[in-house]
Amino acid sequence: MDHSENSRDPNAPSENGISEQDFQYKKVDDKTDQKEEESVESIEKIFESKEVPSWKNQLTFRAFFVSFILGILFTFIVMKLNLTTGIIPSLNVSAGLLGFFFVKTWTKFLEKSGLLKQPFTRQENTVIQTCVVATSGIAFSGGFGSYLFGMSDVIAKQSTEANDGQNIKNPSLAWMIGFLFVVSFLGLFSVVPLRKIMIIDFKLTYPSGTATAHLINSFHTPQGAKLAKKQVRTLGKFFSFSFLWGFFQWFFTGGDGCGFVNFPTLGLKAFENRFYFDFSATYVGVGMICPYLINISLLVGAILSWGIMWPLIGDRKGDWYSAEYPSTSLHSLQGYRVFISIAMILGDGLYNFFKVLGHTIFGLYHQIRDKNSRSVLPVGGRTSSPTDSLSYDDQRRTQLFLKDQIPLWVAIVGYITIAIISAATLPHIFSPLKWYYIVVIYIFAPTLAFCNAYGCGLTDWSLASTYGKLAIFVIGAWAGASHGGVLAGLAACGVMMNIVSTASDLTQDFKTGYMTLASPRSMFVSQIIGTAMGCIISPCVFWLFYKAFHDLGVPGSQYSAPYALVYRNMAILGVEGFSSLPKHCLTLCYVFFIGAIVINGIRDIVGKKWARFIPLPMAMAIPFYLGAYFTIDMCIGSLILFIWEKIDKAKADAFGPAVASGLICGDGIWTLPSSILALAGVNPPICMKFLSRKTNARVDAFLT
Amino acid sequence: MDHSENSRDPNAPSENGISEQDFQYKKVDDKTDQKEEESVESIEKIFESKEVPSWKNQLTFRAFFVSFILGILFTFIVMKLNLTTGIIPSLNVSAGLLGFFFVKTWTKFLEKSGLLKQPFTRQENTVIQTCVVATSGIAFSGGFGSYLFGMSDVIAKQSTEANDGQNIKNPSLAWMIGFLFVVSFLGLFSVVPLRKIMIIDFKLTYPSGTATAHLINSFHTPQGAKLAKKQVRTLGKFFSFSFLWGFFQWFFTGGDGCGFVNFPTLGLKAFENRFYFDFSATYVGVGMICPYLINISLLVGAILSWGIMWPLIGDRKGDWYSAEYPSTSLHSLQGYRVFISIAMILGDGLYNFFKVLGHTIFGLYHQIRDKNSRSVLPVGGRTSSPTDSLSYDDQRRTQLFLKDQIPLWVAIVGYITIAIISAATLPHIFSPLKWYYIVVIYIFAPTLAFCNAYGCGLTDWSLASTYGKLAIFVIGAWAGASHGGVLAGLAACGVMMNIVSTASDLTQDFKTGYMTLASPRSMFVSQIIGTAMGCIISPCVFWLFYKAFHDLGVPGSQYSAPYALVYRNMAILGVEGFSSLPKHCLTLCYVFFIGAIVINGIRDIVGKKWARFIPLPMAMAIPFYLGAYFTIDMCIGSLILFIWEKIDKAKADAFGPAVASGLICGDGIWTLPSSILALAGVNPPICMKFLSRKTNARVDAFLT
Repeated sequence: MDHSENSRDPNAPSENGISEQDFQYKKVDDKTDQKEEESVESIEKIFESKEVPSWKNQLTFRAFFVSFILGILFTFIVMKLNLTTGIIPSLNVSAGLLGFFFVKTWTKFLEKSGLLKQPFTRQENTVIQTCVVATSGIAFSGGFGSYLFGMSDVIAKQSTEANDGQNIKNPSLAWMIGFLFVVSFLGLFSVVPLRKIMIIDFKLTYPSGTATAHLINSFHTPQGAKLAKKQVRTLGKFFSFSFLWGFFQWFFTGGDGCGFVNFPTLGLKAFENRFYFDFSATYVGVGMICPYLINISLLVGAILSWGIMWPLIGDRKGDWYSAEYPSTSLHSLQGYRVFISIAMILGDGLYNFFKVLGHTIFGLYHQIRDKNSRSVLPVGGRTSSPTDSLSYDDQRRTQLFLKDQIPLWVAIVGYITIAIISAATLPHIFSPLKWYYIVVIYIFAPTLAFCNAYGCGLTDWSLASTYGKLAIFVIGAWAGASHGGVLAGLAACGVMMNIVSTASDLTQDFKTGYMTLASPRSMFVSQIIGTAMGCIISPCVFWLFYKAFHDLGVPGSQYSAPYALVYRNMAILGVEGFSSLPKHCLTLCYVFFIGAIVINGIRDIVGKKWARFIPLPMAMAIPFYLGAYFTIDMCIGSLILFIWEKIDKAKADAFGPAVASGLICGDGIWTLPSSILALAGVNPPICMKFLSRKTNARVDAFLT
Repeated sequence: MDHSENSRDPNAPSENGISEQDFQYKKVDDKTDQKEEESVESIEKIFESKEVPSWKNQLTFRAFFVSFILGILFTFIVMKLNLTTGIIPSLNVSAGLLGFFFVKTWTKFLEKSGLLKQPFTRQENTVIQTCVVATSGIAFSGGFGSYLFGMSDVIAKQSTEANDGQNIKNPSLAWMIGFLFVVSFLGLFSVVPLRKIMIIDFKLTYPSGTATAHLINSFHTPQGAKLAKKQVRTLGKFFSFSFLWGFFQWFFTGGDGCGFVNFPTLGLKAFENRFYFDFSATYVGVGMICPYLINISLLVGAILSWGIMWPLIGDRKGDWYSAEYPSTSLHSLQGYRVFISIAMILGDGLYNFFKVLGHTIFGLYHQIRDKNSRSVLPVGGRTSSPTDSLSYDDQRRTQLFLKDQIPLWVAIVGYITIAIISAATLPHIFSPLKWYYIVVIYIFAPTLAFCNAYGCGLTDWSLASTYGKLAIFVIGAWAGASHGGVLAGLAACGVMMNIVSTASDLTQDFKTGYMTLASPRSMFVSQIIGTAMGCIISPCVFWLFYKAFHDLGVPGSQYSAPYALVYRNMAILGVEGFSSLPKHCLTLCYVFFIGAIVINGIRDIVGKKWARFIPLPMAMAIPFYLGAYFTIDMCIGSLILFIWEKIDKAKADAFGPAVASGLICGDGIWTLPSSILALAGVNPPICMKFLSRKTNARVDAFLT
C-alpha cells in the first residue's frame, strides 16, 4: 500500500526480493497468511458487532493530521536512505504501529476529556496507513536519489560526457513541486477502473497489502492492542537510543573524514577498500528487516568487488586506464564500478521483467479461460464468482467494497485532464522533453500500469524502476545526444516511474482496504491527499538536505546519492553508446550482465530449497559501487536477529521489527535537527580522526 | 581472607568502606548473614554425611596448580588497578567462582577418565581461595603502586625536594623479590597465636571471611553448584567481551593521547578537566561492585575538585604559583591536587584509626570483663563458652578447628628467625634503613597486627595503609632529611604494611576455614605457599609492566601510578615539613583535613539512615588528584546495576557480581598480551585522535 509495497516478497516463490535504485523489499510473514487460512471465517465475525463508518466518516481530521506528521517523519527517513545507499526497507510496520499509537493516544485523551465524537476504527487506521505511505512514496518515486538529482551539475560533472547545459537541470524548489504535481496523480486515475478486476475478479494476493491488513486488523482486537502497545514501547526505546546515538556521533564530525562513519573498525587497509563498520543504527535496523539471503548476497557482492576485483583492476592502473584521471572520474576505476554495477542490475531487471511478464500473460490467460468456461455473467455491475462459494469474510468484504463506487468517467476525465496539463507543462520544465514524447508515454502508460499492478498482485514485486529505465533508453535514444537526450531520458523516467509505481501502490491499498472494510472511496481520497502532501513535503525535505549538506552527491561523502550517478550514466549509455567505457570494461559488463541472468535462471531451476543458498545478483550489484561498509552494518543487524531468534524465537518475531523500526526511525529523524544545525551554521566541535601511526607521529610533530 | 578482605564493609555500621592507597572494599551481602541466622543449625547437618579429609589431604597438587594460574590472573588485575587509579575492588567472588569452576572441570575430567582419586571438597576450595588471595595480596601490599614504586626516580623527579641519589631506589627484579621474601612471612607467624582467641573466644564476625565461607559452602550443595555454573557462564561471557573490547581498543592507540582512553565523550572542555567516559570495562565493573555511596562520593569529589576548585585555582596562575613551572610540577596546580588529597586522606584515616582503636579497646574490655564475670575456666586447652550453649554448627566447627594445632613455638621461632634475617638483610637493600629501625618496627608490629586483626574482625576494615603511613612519618623523621629519610620512610612503610595487612588477611582466612571445616594447619600451609608464589609472581608482573610501558608513573599517562607520588610526598612532608607547598596550599590542606574529620563525625552522629546520603571523605579525595574519568566509568557501572535491580532484583543480585568480575578480569588479563606486544615492539597501527575543529582544519591543510 505504499512505495514499500512497491516491493517484493523475497519469500514468495518467483522473485528475489530486490529492485534497482530503490532496493525496497518487504519481509511478509508467511505465518500471517497461514493464520488467515486457518481462521479465515472468524475475522469478520470478530468485528461483526462493530459498525463500519460511512466513507466520509472514515476520513477524519485527526487521521490526516497524524498522517501529515508521520508523512514528514517517513519522508526524512526515505530521503536519507535515498541519498546514502538507496536501500529502502519496508516501513509499513512502523507506519502501522505509529499511526495506531498516535490516534489511540489522541482518542484516549479526548475520551477522558469527554470530547470524543467518534471511536478509532480499523478503517480510519487504514486511511492513515494509505495516506502516510502515499506521502512518503513520493520521496522514492520523486527520484531525489536517482533520476531527478541525476540531472544536477554535481552529478553531471562526474562524467565527461553530456555535461553541457542542455543536459543539466539543477534542483529548485519551484520546478520540483510543479513537476511532482503534474505527474504524481496520473497513476491514481489509471488504476481506478482496474480495482474491481484485480481484487474481486482475479482475487490477486498482494502479499504486502494482505500483511498490512492483518496488522491493522490485529491491532483492533484486544490482545492485538496490548501487543501493539508493547511493540510501540520497544520501538520508542530504540528510537530514543538511535536518535541519541546519532546526536552523540554528530559532536565528533567536525571535518571531512571525521567521526564514527569513518571508523576503520577492521583496520586501515580494509578501510581503504571500504570494509568497515560505520556504526550506523539505520543500516543495522535495515539488516534486521531484510531477509538473511539479501544480507549475505550484499556481503558476497562486496567481497567480490571491493575485496577482489577492484584491487586487481587497481593494479592495472596506467595500463587499463590512465593514471591521470582523478579517482572519481568514470574513466578510472570508478567507471568499472559504475558500469559493471549497471550491467548486473540491468541483467537482473531484464530477467525478472520477462519472468513477471510471462507470469502476467499466463495468469491473465487462465483467468479469462476460466471465466469463459464458467460463463458467469456480470450481474448488476458485480463481476464475481458465484456468491454461494464465498466465505462469510469474502461476502461481507465484497459487499462493502462494491458499496462505494468511483464512477468510471471520473477516472477517464481525470486521467485525460491531467495528461493534457502534464504534456503542456513538462516541456516548459525540461526543454528537451518534447510534448509528443509525453503523449506517447501517456498512451502506453495505462497498459504498463496494469501489467505492473497485476504482476505485483501475483508476486509482490513492483517493476516501477525497470519501466523507468525503459523510458530512459527509449526516449533518450529518440531525442538523441545533440538534443539533450540525457535530460529528456531522465525526465521521461520520472514520468513513467510515477505512473507505474502509484498504480501498483494503490492496488495494494485497495486490497488492504478490502480486507479491513475500508471504503474504496475513502482510500482514493486518502491517497489523493497523501500524494498532494508528498508533492510538497518531499521537495522541501530534499531541499533541506541539498542546502544543509554541501557535499550532496559527491562520491565518498556521507550523502553520495549513488543512484543519481547510476541513472545518469544509464541515460548517457542510452544516448551515446559504449564509447565512454574504459578498457575491458565492456567485456566485464557483458560477463556480469549474462552472469546475473544465469544466476537468476539457476535460482529458478534448482527450486526453493537450494535457491536460498544462491545469492541474488541484484543485491550483489549494490555494494559494487558503494563499498562494503553498509553491508557490514546490515550483516551485524542480521546477526543480532539471528542470535535473538536462537535465544527466543517468539520474542524476536514479535519485537524484531519494532527494534529495527526504532533504530531506523531514530537515526532517520536525527537528520532533521542535524540538517537544521548545518543550515544554521552550527558546526560540530570535535573531529575524531583516524591516522596511521606514522602519519600521527608527523601530525604530533606538526602540532607541537 | 585476602588483601581485599583487608577491606571494610561499607554496609557495616561503623565505617565508610574505603581506605587510602588501595581503596579496597567488599560489599558483603547483609542477607547472607541473615540467612545464616535463620538456617544456622542446618549448614553442617547438610554436610554431615561428607567426610572431612585430613589436613594433608586438603592440600592437593591440583589446588596449588589452579591457585598458581588464578594467582597470576589476579596479580595482573591488581597490578593494573594499582598502577591506574589505585582502586581495587574485592575479587573474592571471582576467585571463589573461578577456583570452583577450574577444579570442578578438572575433577569431572578425571572422573570420566577414571583417574579421580579424591573428590573435590569445600575444604580444598577454601585452600585455593586462601592461596590465590595470599598470592594476589602481595601485588597490593608489595606497594608496586605506592611506596615501592614511590622510591623510583620517575616519581622522585616530579618533585624538586629529596630527589637526590640516596632517596632514590629504582625497581629491579632481584631486590624486589628479596625484599618481599624477607618481609612478607612475618605477618603469618605473628597471627598464629591469636587465631584461637579471635575466632573461638571472641567470636569475631569477620564479615568478608564469613561471606566467603558462605559462598564456598553454597557451591558444594547441589543447587549452589547449579547457580555457580550459571554464574561462571555469565562471568565467562563478560570476560570474553571485556577481553575482546580491550583488544579492539588497542588497535587505535598508536600514539600519545590516542584511543578510547582519550575519548572526549563529554566534549573537549570537559576533557581538559578530565571529565570523560574512557570506555574502561574494568572501572565499569568496579562501579558495579562498589556501593552506590562510594560512586556518588567519588563523583562529588570529582566535581568539587576538577569541576570547581582546580579551575578556580588555575585562574590564580602567576599569583598563587609561578607560571614558569611545568604543569606536572608540585609547585604548580599539581601541588594543590596532591597535597589537598593527602590532607583529606590523612584526616579520614586519623578519624577512623581512633574510631577503630576505640572499638578495639572497648571490645577487648568487654570480652575480658564478660569472661571474668562468667569465670569459665579453660579446659584442656579449650578456652570457650560453655559447650552446651553452642549450636551444632559451632560445636562441630570448634571441634575440627582445634583438632590440628600449630604449636606456639613454631610461631615464635619462625617470627624471630625471619625478624633477624630481615633486620640483617634490609639495610643492604635500602642503605638509609638502619637495622635498629627494623628491630623497633618488629617489636611493635605484633601489637599493631593484633589491633588490626581485631578491628578487622569487628568492622571488616583493615587499616594496614594507615599503619604504613605511621611508619613513614615516624621512621622518616627519625632518619632525617640528610640521611635518606624519604627512602627509609617508604621502606619502613613497606615492612609495616606487610605485617599488619597479612595479619588481618590470615585471620579472615581462619574464619573462613572455621566455617568450612578446613584445617587451620592446611590454611597456614596454603597461605605460606601462596605468599611465596606472590613474592615471585608480583615482582615479575610489575617488571613486565615496567619494561613494557615506558610512561609508567608519568602523570596523565595510562599507568600514572597515582599513589606512588602521593606516598613519596607524604614521606617528603614527614621529613622536610611544609616548605614545599605552594601558596595557600597549607590553608586549604587544613580545611580539608578538618573537613574530612567533621564529615566523618557527622556521618557517625546522624546514624545509618542519614549517613547514606553523606559522601565519604576518603572516596571524595581520590579523584582530587586523578580526575573524574574513572568516577564516570564507575557511576555508569552503578547506573547499570541500579537499572538492572529495578528490572529484576533477584537476577541482578545473583549475576551482578559475576558480570562485574567478568568485566574486570577480561580487561585485566588483556594487559598480559598487551604488555607482551609492547615488549615485542609491536605497536598499534592506528591512532584515533580527537582534535578541535580548528586544529583539525590546520592538520588537514598540513597533510595535503
